Amino acid sequence: MATFEDFSKLELKVGKILEVAVHPNADKLYVIKVDLGEKTTQLVAGIRNYYTPEELVGKSAVIVVNLEPKMLRGVESNGMLLAAHSEDKIVILTTDRQCLPGSFIK
Amino acid sequence: MATFEDFSKLELKVGKILEVAVHPNADKLYVIKVDLGEKTTQLVAGIRNYYTPEELVGKSAVIVVNLEPKMLRGVESNGMLLAAHSEDKIVILTTDRQCLPGSFIK
Repeated sequence: MATFEDFSKLELKVGKILEVAVHPNADKLYVIKVDLGEKTTQLVAGIRNYYTPEELVGKSAVIVVNLEPKMLRGVESNGMLLAAHSEDKIVILTTDRQCLPGSFIK
Repeated sequence: MATFEDFSKLELKVGKILEVAVHPNADKLYVIKVDLGEKTTQLVAGIRNYYTPEELVGKSAVIVVNLEPKMLRGVESNGMLLAAHSEDKIVILTTDRQCLPGSFIK
């Protein structure tokens, strides 16, 4: 069991996907630029086998924004894009209706 | 900053909304029954000003499933339905494509 304090340590925000590039050193990864309202961030996500860049750009995604930066195969990732793992596919989370980039999630 | 260990304490799953009832003692709350694949759960969510029951039933929502149960105005809530808070509205999270209830989110 987790507590509400555990949950509140994490900062989740709506991020609008601005750009998607293939990772130079990993064939399952994308390097994604995301609009978080007051700033943009770059993260690495393993969804290349499930989405084309065109399918992603413009979408609202769900990002854990306050994780420690991590190097993934030589590229810095600031934040984690959340996705559901359903049988043999990966499906990103999004918002049910349009909302502003940077909107806080709780 | 949060760590990946902090994030991994939380269990997030896709929950398909089965039933939505008005909370008997709180005019902003719904009591919602959710299909989590291997089981169903009941939770309380403050989205009554933003969604009708008909808009919610059948939707895939995003649930923190391993929070301690909490009594909300006399009704037990097992899990927390995640939503974005955007200016003057609340927008639930969902999946970008269909996926099975109970799918793990990470």
